[in-house]
Amino acid sequence: MAKDLEMTILLDFYGDMLTPKQRDFLDYYYNQDYSLAEIAANVGITRQGVRDAIKRAETQLTEMEERLKLVERFREVKKGLDEIMDCATKISAENRKSGLSREINDLTVRIKSIAISLSE
Amino acid sequence: MAKDLEMTILLDFYGDMLTPKQRDFLDYYYNQDYSLAEIAANVGITRQGVRDAIKRAETQLTEMEERLKLVERFREVKKGLDEIMDCATKISAENRKSGLSREINDLTVRIKSIAISLSE
Repeated sequence: MAKDLEMTILLDFYGDMLTPKQRDFLDYYYNQDYSLAEIAANVGITRQGVRDAIKRAETQLTEMEERLKLVERFREVKKGLDEIMDCATKISAENRKSGLSREINDLTVRIKSIAISLSE
Repeated sequence: MAKDLEMTILLDFYGDMLTPKQRDFLDYYYNQDYSLAEIAANVGITRQGVRDAIKRAETQLTEMEERLKLVERFREVKKGLDEIMDCATKISAENRKSGLSREINDLTVRIKSIAISLSE
C-alpha cells in the first residue's frame, strides 16, 4: 500500500461517512504516518487485520468519489482560483506601470486574499 | 412535505449515493415537480409508499450533509466568489476613472467570467 496524498484528500472530504474505527485507522496511517505494525500493536489486533480494515475503508472512500465527484469539483474551483490570483497579480503590475491607483492595488490584494483562503 | 430548494441542492450533491429508485422518486418530485399521486400512478405503488420512500431518501441526504458539510463548504466558496466579482467590478470602475488601461479592463472581465463559471 502506497501512502498517497490522494487518500489524505479523500479522507478529508468523505472521512465522516466511515465508522469511527475506520477513520482512526486511516488517520493513524495517513495523517500521523504510523506503520501498520505500530497501529496493530496500539489497538491490539493483527497487522493483517489493520491492513484489511484500511483497505476496506480506502475502497469506500474511492467509491464515494467515483459516485459524487466532489473532490473533482473542488479541484476545478481551485484551478479557477489560481487563475484569478494570476489575473490579480497582473492587474497589480499593470497598475504600477500605468500610474498607481491605491484603490486598485488594495482591491487586487483583497482578491488574492479571498482566493487564497478559499483554496485552503 | 414542503418542496424546498435545499433538497434540490442536496440531491445535486449527494444524489448518486442513493439507489436508482430513490433518486428517480426525488427527481420526479423535486426537479420535475410531479405530485406524490402522479408518481404513485406512474410507478404503480401507493401514494403512501412513494411518500415513505421520498422521506427516507430525504433523511439520507440530510444526514450526509450533517456529516460531510460539503454543501456548506461550497456555499462559502460561492460567497467568496461573489466578493471577488464585486472587487473586480470596483477595479473596473476605478480603472475608468484613473485613466483607462485596456489590460486591466480585460483582466477584470476575465476574473468575473471565471468567478461566474465557478459559481454555477
